[in-house]
Amino acid sequence: MTKVIKNGTIVTADLTYKADVLIDSGKIIEIGPNLKGDEEIDATGCYVMPGGIDPHTHLEMPFMGTYSSDDFESGTRAALAGGTTMVVDFALPAPGEGLLEALKRWDNKSTRAHCDYSFHMAITWWSEQVFNEMKQVTERGINTFKHFMAYKGALMVNDDELYSSFKRCAELGAIPLVHAENGDVVAELSAKLLADGNNGPEGHAYSRPPQVEGEATNRAIMIADMAGVPLYVVHTSCEESHEAIRRAKMQGKRVWGEPLIQHLTLDESEYFDKDWDHAARRVMSPPFRNKQHQDSLWAGLASGSLSVVATDHCAFSTEQKRYGVGDFTKIPNGTGGLEDRMPMLWTYGVETGRITMNEFVAVTSTNIAKILNVYPKKGAVLVGADADLVVWDPEATKTISAETQQSAIDYNVFEGKEVKGLPRYTLSRGVVAWADGKIQTPEGHGEFVARDPGMPVTKALSTWKELTAPRPVERSGIPATGV
Amino acid sequence: MTKVIKNGTIVTADLTYKADVLIDSGKIIEIGPNLKGDEEIDATGCYVMPGGIDPHTHLEMPFMGTYSSDDFESGTRAALAGGTTMVVDFALPAPGEGLLEALKRWDNKSTRAHCDYSFHMAITWWSEQVFNEMKQVTERGINTFKHFMAYKGALMVNDDELYSSFKRCAELGAIPLVHAENGDVVAELSAKLLADGNNGPEGHAYSRPPQVEGEATNRAIMIADMAGVPLYVVHTSCEESHEAIRRAKMQGKRVWGEPLIQHLTLDESEYFDKDWDHAARRVMSPPFRNKQHQDSLWAGLASGSLSVVATDHCAFSTEQKRYGVGDFTKIPNGTGGLEDRMPMLWTYGVETGRITMNEFVAVTSTNIAKILNVYPKKGAVLVGADADLVVWDPEATKTISAETQQSAIDYNVFEGKEVKGLPRYTLSRGVVAWADGKIQTPEGHGEFVARDPGMPVTKALSTWKELTAPRPVERSGIPATGV
Amino acid sequence: MTKVIKNGTIVTADLTYKADVLIDSGKIIEIGPNLKGDEEIDATGCYVMPGGIDPHTHLEMPFMGTYSSDDFESGTRAALAGGTTMVVDFALPAPGEGLLEALKRWDNKSTRAHCDYSFHMAITWWSEQVFNEMKQVTERGINTFKHFMAYKGALMVNDDELYSSFKRCAELGAIPLVHAENGDVVAELSAKLLADGNNGPEGHAYSRPPQVEGEATNRAIMIADMAGVPLYVVHTSCEESHEAIRRAKMQGKRVWGEPLIQHLTLDESEYFDKDWDHAARRVMSPPFRNKQHQDSLWAGLASGSLSVVATDHCAFSTEQKRYGVGDFTKIPNGTGGLEDRMPMLWTYGVETGRITMNEFVAVTSTNIAKILNVYPKKGAVLVGADADLVVWDPEATKTISAETQQSAIDYNVFEGKEVKGLPRYTLSRGVVAWADGKIQTPEGHGEFVARDPGMPVTKALSTWKELTAPRPVERSGIPATGV
Amino acid sequence: MTKVIKNGTIVTADLTYKADVLIDSGKIIEIGPNLKGDEEIDATGCYVMPGGIDPHTHLEMPFMGTYSSDDFESGTRAALAGGTTMVVDFALPAPGEGLLEALKRWDNKSTRAHCDYSFHMAITWWSEQVFNEMKQVTERGINTFKHFMAYKGALMVNDDELYSSFKRCAELGAIPLVHAENGDVVAELSAKLLADGNNGPEGHAYSRPPQVEGEATNRAIMIADMAGVPLYVVHTSCEESHEAIRRAKMQGKRVWGEPLIQHLTLDESEYFDKDWDHAARRVMSPPFRNKQHQDSLWAGLASGSLSVVATDHCAFSTEQKRYGVGDFTKIPNGTGGLEDRMPMLWTYGVETGRITMNEFVAVTSTNIAKILNVYPKKGAVLVGADADLVVWDPEATKTISAETQQSAIDYNVFEGKEVKGLPRYTLSRGVVAWADGKIQTPEGHGEFVARDPGMPVTKALSTWKELTAPRPVERSGIPATGV
Ligand SMILES: [Zn+2]
Ligand SMILES: [Zn+2]
Ligand SMILES: [Zn+2]
Ligand SMILES: [Zn+2]
Ligand SMILES: [Zn+2]
Ligand SMILES: [Zn+2]
Ligand SMILES: [Zn+2]
Ligand SMILES: [Zn+2]
Repeated sequence: MTKVIKNGTIVTADLTYKADVLIDSGKIIEIGPNLKGDEEIDATGCYVMPGGIDPHTHLEMPFMGTYSSDDFESGTRAALAGGTTMVVDFALPAPGEGLLEALKRWDNKSTRAHCDYSFHMAITWWSEQVFNEMKQVTERGINTFKHFMAYKGALMVNDDELYSSFKRCAELGAIPLVHAENGDVVAELSAKLLADGNNGPEGHAYSRPPQVEGEATNRAIMIADMAGVPLYVVHTSCEESHEAIRRAKMQGKRVWGEPLIQHLTLDESEYFDKDWDHAARRVMSPPFRNKQHQDSLWAGLASGSLSVVATDHCAFSTEQKRYGVGDFTKIPNGTGGLEDRMPMLWTYGVETGRITMNEFVAVTSTNIAKILNVYPKKGAVLVGADADLVVWDPEATKTISAETQQSAIDYNVFEGKEVKGLPRYTLSRGVVAWADGKIQTPEGHGEFVARDPGMPVTKALSTWKELTAPRPVERSGIPATGV
Repeated sequence: MTKVIKNGTIVTADLTYKADVLIDSGKIIEIGPNLKGDEEIDATGCYVMPGGIDPHTHLEMPFMGTYSSDDFESGTRAALAGGTTMVVDFALPAPGEGLLEALKRWDNKSTRAHCDYSFHMAITWWSEQVFNEMKQVTERGINTFKHFMAYKGALMVNDDELYSSFKRCAELGAIPLVHAENGDVVAELSAKLLADGNNGPEGHAYSRPPQVEGEATNRAIMIADMAGVPLYVVHTSCEESHEAIRRAKMQGKRVWGEPLIQHLTLDESEYFDKDWDHAARRVMSPPFRNKQHQDSLWAGLASGSLSVVATDHCAFSTEQKRYGVGDFTKIPNGTGGLEDRMPMLWTYGVETGRITMNEFVAVTSTNIAKILNVYPKKGAVLVGADADLVVWDPEATKTISAETQQSAIDYNVFEGKEVKGLPRYTLSRGVVAWADGKIQTPEGHGEFVARDPGMPVTKALSTWKELTAPRPVERSGIPATGV
Repeated sequence: MTKVIKNGTIVTADLTYKADVLIDSGKIIEIGPNLKGDEEIDATGCYVMPGGIDPHTHLEMPFMGTYSSDDFESGTRAALAGGTTMVVDFALPAPGEGLLEALKRWDNKSTRAHCDYSFHMAITWWSEQVFNEMKQVTERGINTFKHFMAYKGALMVNDDELYSSFKRCAELGAIPLVHAENGDVVAELSAKLLADGNNGPEGHAYSRPPQVEGEATNRAIMIADMAGVPLYVVHTSCEESHEAIRRAKMQGKRVWGEPLIQHLTLDESEYFDKDWDHAARRVMSPPFRNKQHQDSLWAGLASGSLSVVATDHCAFSTEQKRYGVGDFTKIPNGTGGLEDRMPMLWTYGVETGRITMNEFVAVTSTNIAKILNVYPKKGAVLVGADADLVVWDPEATKTISAETQQSAIDYNVFEGKEVKGLPRYTLSRGVVAWADGKIQTPEGHGEFVARDPGMPVTKALSTWKELTAPRPVERSGIPATGV
Repeated sequence: MTKVIKNGTIVTADLTYKADVLIDSGKIIEIGPNLKGDEEIDATGCYVMPGGIDPHTHLEMPFMGTYSSDDFESGTRAALAGGTTMVVDFALPAPGEGLLEALKRWDNKSTRAHCDYSFHMAITWWSEQVFNEMKQVTERGINTFKHFMAYKGALMVNDDELYSSFKRCAELGAIPLVHAENGDVVAELSAKLLADGNNGPEGHAYSRPPQVEGEATNRAIMIADMAGVPLYVVHTSCEESHEAIRRAKMQGKRVWGEPLIQHLTLDESEYFDKDWDHAARRVMSPPFRNKQHQDSLWAGLASGSLSVVATDHCAFSTEQKRYGVGDFTKIPNGTGGLEDRMPMLWTYGVETGRITMNEFVAVTSTNIAKILNVYPKKGAVLVGADADLVVWDPEATKTISAETQQSAIDYNVFEGKEVKGLPRYTLSRGVVAWADGKIQTPEGHGEFVARDPGMPVTKALSTWKELTAPRPVERSGIPATGV
């Protein structure tokens, strides 16, 4: 049974044109005028775009004996409600745990997903076992490895471990990711703030100033350059980090930066709210920054020095947030955003003219599809591509509110924001998953998306590094001389 | 009668995949496996890419009572021989001449073209007539206006003229281009050099150091920002200019930079050659720079801070160059490059790993097609696009030489360079125009490509500028107060 | 009759130490412990510092048929009341007027000065006469030449005039100064704003955004570099201009920037005041900027990328400001500041820890004395130096108010600011000129300070430029070859 | 018995003027014309400048069971021969060794010094004992603490140790120094190079590219900023590190950079010499860089973004260097330079016009005297200052050669360089220590120079950091709200 999206305007990272889209067996089989199918989806007045890809989520993430509140069921439900059709979550081995073992746990959790998903594998410790299993992980369809430069004593790895893992990525044709904050300094600043009686949620922001993020970004870039591998910097939140990325790019280094929708639209004043809950609910790492940093991030999206807008969706309820009353370091780090990413970005980006519609598609979907090597299966409106599509109504409006959201938690950091531009329909592999304000697919519809290593950028960089590698000086009779 | 390109690998700015390409009536009508057509073109072992677009040529350009030696016939012949299927030339009104009048002259010259072409219109003086005719020019399919900040006393316009013309571009949805060198300073430096006895071709390079280019680029960017319009900087040759572009981009400004293949691969040492002819033949503006500037340009291509590789093809014979014996300011400015741009960029860029194949397509074709608003008619391998294609043999090699070139002149600035990667076939709107080392199409095959104003970037910028425009403070009883 | 300053702490750009200062015949004749003199000045609890030098004033400046309201009498009275013991004013030839003729007018006006003074000579047009008179001007003790890149149709000179004048400065060992704003663009923006009904004082700010200042600074730096001469940029008000200066310095260029006390402490919100008079009184060029720009300027003072704090004192009464009701371009440009510069800088700079006391002396006095080649006659506490001194009471406070100021005008842009740190005594060549809250010297006490060209920096730069000057390639038999 | 330096021109960081200098009991007691003393030193045709201060030496430094070959005797002899009158050496505790214990060892070694000296104390490990002894060390007259970010497994400290020590410096009013290279990455690169058969001296350069220095500099700056303390970066050798320093300064941070005379005048091609000995003798960390880095360093000296020229004098004989045949990591790191620093800088800096004579004095003596808080006892030509002076003959020339040098080793990295500008006399506390090409003072003449903490810059920074410290948000009833 075929399906056709009629009367819409297709908007991709490249193009804007009127055409219908014919779908069969989960794939786009034809694009053109006046197509016919067994079932019609009306896109009159709408844009038909590649479904969003959020490359940065933490669903049902283990934390202090509990879990982040949105799991693969509610999380992907929120995703689809907001036009996102694929999420990439982080498999996090406990220190000492094997990568494949951790992967098994993530495989189990993800069975409930409403939309397609993939995983990044985190490198949280280093050993010969980890080195060996990295290869097996790539064979399992994971070509990205995440590294934490913060969370000292837990997930953090140090510089020689980074180098070793990055080097291994280079061999495997995989791409390393970093959470870039200087964990040593964050720990010292946190201890000092607590000692000084700065224990409220604003202390979290004080303990992670832009400088510590900029420094770690700069360091990771250098290490990646030495290891001969591209680098993807998650949640780039500030000018300092963005500056390090731009500086690297101006030297021809291959680095991508990922601002979050939260950092683009919310600022540090949230932490100074008199209401502890309000502030604590916004606690995430890196914290929100000021307006100057926001301007920097928007400029990055327009100019291409930043590539992807993500959410770092990691939802904790108010109850969970209150673990940190009296000690901000115990407030679980994370906020929601999966449902709001695309409407917020459209409203604050496209409606204002800061970015074009095509750039919107690029930063919400196509760019990351290319980086992750799943383009054009995902991120494209092309014959042969998965029919992960969003029918976007640019005139639809709503006021964001926790009361009406999909997420399992009891608040929303964008509460009260008016957005213009919303999905009318979201399709996951050809199935209408979001329509009439409701999720239409059962849990478990989502499938794992395998991703091969060896992207063109990775290969080109290896060629260049080989060409310019250090060569020994030829000498005879060493040493050869007197004074 | 249909034509099919068989057994090749399609390489676009986005994608690399095996597929055949079916062509009818000058357009791509199908892309897929195992296609059949009336005529077969064998692409075994080859890449099938969008034909190159060179947005910067001067064919049969009037100069000191004569003309640049390559006209639309020999110039487009050279283009096709090198895989380029479209050129954009500059219509240059004499001071006082109307735009439409100048256009007529270019229309006449271009009737001999072997491949498709379009025009940029130059604004070489300012008046109400020029203001008015700019609109008519856009209606004639020209959405780009060129401005010379150098060539004082001839083509140069000053800052208020730039502002007025840029403002007019903003109204029309057109994009201004600049030749960015400070003409006043070039004139002063030239006079001083001649007075000091520095009259050889190296004096040309001394008279146009990177600083004067960087300054003018920076100035044009500011003026475009004030006028609320994007900017395209032609022949970005140096770090100073590239830096100004990067700085603009980091503030969210819409600016593109265009390095030339000459600046990417040749350096200033050419001007110090003991042979006057050798040096004079390399005289162009801006002049070749040193290796550090080359590294900067390559990094710009890899990182996206520079967008397009062009040639500024403007060929003068040795005889013409010798007009400047004893006075470098009389050496006609310009070099060839149309036939060599793509093989040189492939050899020094793709083969070395500095850029990927997809980036090669982007910077030789797709990016400029988008900027000029002719994508996907040009610059794409998509159903419905013009079949301007190149079948690229990555294993083919040759040594560049004037003896075997298409260009009408008697030397080649790349003489002796070994290139690897050459067109096996070049197709212009479905016609095989280059095969077996020979041009197959008659002159006059080329058609004018009309380009509409109002690109998405132009519109988005206007929206943002309107949103952030100065607003008057509301006051009553002005003035209202004492001390 | 000798005078001794007892019990104070000497603070110079270099040093902080307890010592007395013995003065005779207008000069410091001894520095040390327990000195004795005919007259004692008590400096207990105070710092004894070099008197301030304000290198940027416009006293009794002709304007639209009237004059700026503070003349050399009231202006230098204000200076002394604020600890400043020397001012440098600008001699402004009308277009077509000879330099020496203009100088005569300034000589006349300055006879009423209470403190020492010198002149910069403005180059407001270009001719052989100007070229020739520049030499005579230097022989008259003026080694600095000012150039306006704004005020189109009045004072503005264009790029080839800048180059010619800068080149002449290089020959004479003099230093060019620039008022850096793009006058063409300011004129265009002003016209557009007025046409759009933006005629209030805020329109002045809108018409001169940081970009137009940054651009002109960048351009002047390039031209100075080409001419082989250092450059002094007056009233550096923004990050854009400061960035251009830093970028030049990072290439070894000799450039100084001069922020004004107004730009360091007041911001653009002043122009949005509902009271027209309030806003109009703050109209000056460049206009006040936002807080980010202020941070940039303060960082420049601390790091040394900016060198001097001045005032651009050019006072117009409210009545004069009202010439511009209904048309901001008619509001006379200028504010006061002579009396407030040092207390404001101490309060916002030294008291906060942004700069040290020694840096305070450097930026208010010593640096400019060196740049202007009057060090150590001025700007020093050294034996042999002029006894231009301020006895600074760091505990004294006041609230700035027009009611108690020396300036002739009826308001003060710093009205209501609390300052801590004030002169107890100000000495001009050994004469106590300010004490007990009153001026003690008669008008006419001030003398012209002659300044020789040929500073060490100027000489070093000439040496380097000569060493690296373009050299012709030696060739025989030109042209020498075939293909 | 008094001594007078007659007929010279005094050159300081500020001033150039003709005057005689009268000396008694090791101090300057008068400066002026026509002075008389018991003994006359003829300075006709010469400049009389503050003696040089080299803040970076390693004399008799323990290494692999042996010691660097120049001890305090030969090292200070070389210093005086080159116009340097004070050295600052590094006391290096072994891991686990107390600071005071280490100091004792350095006290012992230094008894043989010919000129005055002081120490920096290195923090090579961290503990409560170290924390406590830092205070005692400052009481012993040492206000600077050195930290190694490289030499993993030996001297290197990690980020939290850096933070703790920097924080301690802030409390004590002391200044931290860093050797900035990423030790983890250097170790990894070294291992890889050796594994790849890159074992020659050029491997040393390959293992420490500019990136690893730039990264560490950037990191140290961030940590110092967080700890609220200024930072001094030793041996700044490259643009990457200089860029990090400039970027910090542009944000108002207090950071100084110290290029070495070697990096200013020698380049990486030395390591590619076919003679193993030649290359190995140049092995130091950081290694020599290319010409672009040299240009960056020179621009830093001219513009003030770099502050001090030092040597890192650490001399190893060819025999010692040969420990590393077959394994570059075993080549002792270090070169000489004490005798050559000032003549080389004069020749390549002052003679060329890159810096002025006054800037020469600033970067060889006065700036570091201020930073180290020994100004004006050292680094000045002022009454009351130590008579550490050099009578500099700008016309004297020589060819640098190991055969005629003071240093104990058998080669000189500047071998064959022609220098113009040499000390005629060097005076240490009024004693003629170098004259007629020979050392005149006995060993042991040198005295320890105590240096107090609490410099003005340190205090100002603390004030600012306190003013802008994080403040808790006042909240009642925490948590306070529902959704
Ligand atoms: Zn994270
Ligand atoms: Zn995360
Ligand atoms: Zn051009
Ligand atoms: Zn051109
Ligand atoms: Zn001005
Ligand atoms: Zn002024
Ligand atoms: Zn070191
Ligand atoms: Zn050292």
